[in-house]
Amino acid sequence: MSITLNSPLDMHLHLRDEEMLSVVGPLSSESFSGAIIMPNLVPPITTKEALISYKERILKACKGNTFTPYMTLFFKPTYSKEFLASIKDELTAIKLYPAGITTNSQGGVSGFDVDELRPTLDAMSELEIPLCIHGETNGFVMDREAEFVSIYEMLATNFPKLKIIMEHITTKESVEALDKFDNLYATITLHHLLITLDDVAGGMLQPHLFCKPIAKRPEDREALRKVALEGHPKVMFGSDSAPHPQHAKESCGCAAGVFTAPIALQVLTELFMEHSSIDKLQSFISSNARNIYSNIEIPTKTVILEEKNFEVPGKYADVVPMFSGETLKYSIIKIT
Amino acid sequence: MSITLNSPLDMHLHLRDEEMLSVVGPLSSESFSGAIIMPNLVPPITTKEALISYKERILKACKGNTFTPYMTLFFKPTYSKEFLASIKDELTAIKLYPAGITTNSQGGVSGFDVDELRPTLDAMSELEIPLCIHGETNGFVMDREAEFVSIYEMLATNFPKLKIIMEHITTKESVEALDKFDNLYATITLHHLLITLDDVAGGMLQPHLFCKPIAKRPEDREALRKVALEGHPKVMFGSDSAPHPQHAKESCGCAAGVFTAPIALQVLTELFMEHSSIDKLQSFISSNARNIYSNIEIPTKTVILEEKNFEVPGKYADVVPMFSGETLKYSIIKIT
Repeated sequence: MSITLNSPLDMHLHLRDEEMLSVVGPLSSESFSGAIIMPNLVPPITTKEALISYKERILKACKGNTFTPYMTLFFKPTYSKEFLASIKDELTAIKLYPAGITTNSQGGVSGFDVDELRPTLDAMSELEIPLCIHGETNGFVMDREAEFVSIYEMLATNFPKLKIIMEHITTKESVEALDKFDNLYATITLHHLLITLDDVAGGMLQPHLFCKPIAKRPEDREALRKVALEGHPKVMFGSDSAPHPQHAKESCGCAAGVFTAPIALQVLTELFMEHSSIDKLQSFISSNARNIYSNIEIPTKTVILEEKNFEVPGKYADVVPMFSGETLKYSIIKIT
Repeated sequence: MSITLNSPLDMHLHLRDEEMLSVVGPLSSESFSGAIIMPNLVPPITTKEALISYKERILKACKGNTFTPYMTLFFKPTYSKEFLASIKDELTAIKLYPAGITTNSQGGVSGFDVDELRPTLDAMSELEIPLCIHGETNGFVMDREAEFVSIYEMLATNFPKLKIIMEHITTKESVEALDKFDNLYATITLHHLLITLDDVAGGMLQPHLFCKPIAKRPEDREALRKVALEGHPKVMFGSDSAPHPQHAKESCGCAAGVFTAPIALQVLTELFMEHSSIDKLQSFISSNARNIYSNIEIPTKTVILEEKNFEVPGKYADVVPMFSGETLKYSIIKIT
């Protein structure tokens, strides 16, 4: 039996820049039709020029693969409607980071004052530009996302025409928020469908499974699995695949991020097969995103997988992937 | 102003063996009068011969420092009363590990069947040998200790004459259990008085702060601080100082344990001074243990500390201590 996925999309992806981009760009663009590209470079993407130039570097790194990078800006409350209108054709979404919450987010938002945010968010609502949010407070690590839900709800209430995407959700509280507001959506990563804090710190400490938001409790993972496996129409796959060089992961002060791009489709197929939900994978991996992001065009790509062992490389260049050196049950056998 | 500590005791210490023992033995024995020595070597200490031989190796490693290693056996439900009576003069306590719960604990207890444990625990009660327990279930990492409290209570109820020491407690649930049963006592580490999971995994991942039980929530740390700082008579200092070579901490699959022995007295002095509780430190660091462990003799030692910067070495041999390379506020200026 083979599994056919049409135009898989990764709605939350870190491609980095320069040498790292040249390593990871080809991997994502080979099997995915497109991806929402995170803007948290150093410095972050905040201008039209930087955005267009980054898009060009990405396309170059993707070496002719059929792949559309959906570009995002790093949220600033000072973006004017004129500026956003001028960049709209190049821009798919804007990503908001609370200040200091994760890798390269120092310039993010420090408070969530509606009046301060209103001009930009009103302009985004009008121009139909979705807002992607890394939703964590600065509280205790296991509570940060649940504490942020009230901010999601405040924004959803105050900006009812703004599509708000709760990125890489990890808790049952975020899942519950999904159905309370028409304009709240979510991405879920592969790793948060698979692991809990037990996998990170329950046995030996596993730096390669350390990420932000940190993996939560078993009941949180169950809540995430439920909406992903049922193909909930407001939920999209977003890998948050985040490459770091090996030394930055296996050190005193390990960087946050799990690199999943090259194994995501294989492992998602196994997970959805195991749970007799393979008929919902197309929704999770592509169709829901197509419906939610009405402003994207999606290149046609067909990815065929079969039950056939895939030996995951120990490293891709200097980046250790999830399941490094392990054998997966499904392989991609054809991409057209 | 100088702080004088009389006969400080570390009621939970890992000294390891061979080369590591030769590194850490002198450090603990210099400033402490004695310590309860953990038996989880490979293989664990389960015979009189192994116990006596290990004690001799420890004394040799301590290079003439005034220091008594209080020896423990690795708990087995098959120890007979005759065996325990024969070893009683050399033995201070018996340490029980649930199987597989931490470093070198594979041979621990796999269920807590009262009837199976009764012969040994009755003999220990009669011979007045305290039982030290690493109290964690195999559950979700943040719940393991709280889940174990019912086992503590079951043992305390069934063996009312047995002194049971809840080792390195990390939760408010364990603190609450202390006052419910006359025969429950506890040790608290330095690091669990200082850190929460936020310090381990809230920013970058910090392998040198990874330990078992894992550091918990802010409210748990508050509960621990309260009983330590008030000199609660059932609470003793036990560092659980656990040296690992640097490569075993900074790697893919980091070992659990924080090495605090050489900085514990300095940092405890700072903590108790900060909280206007310095008059309670003698209880926490020695007197309570003297009252709880009625079977120990304590060598006289006087440790004098003053407010004077202490630069913590980056490493002791190949072991990275807590506060490596940082400056502490208090120094040990004299030991007699």
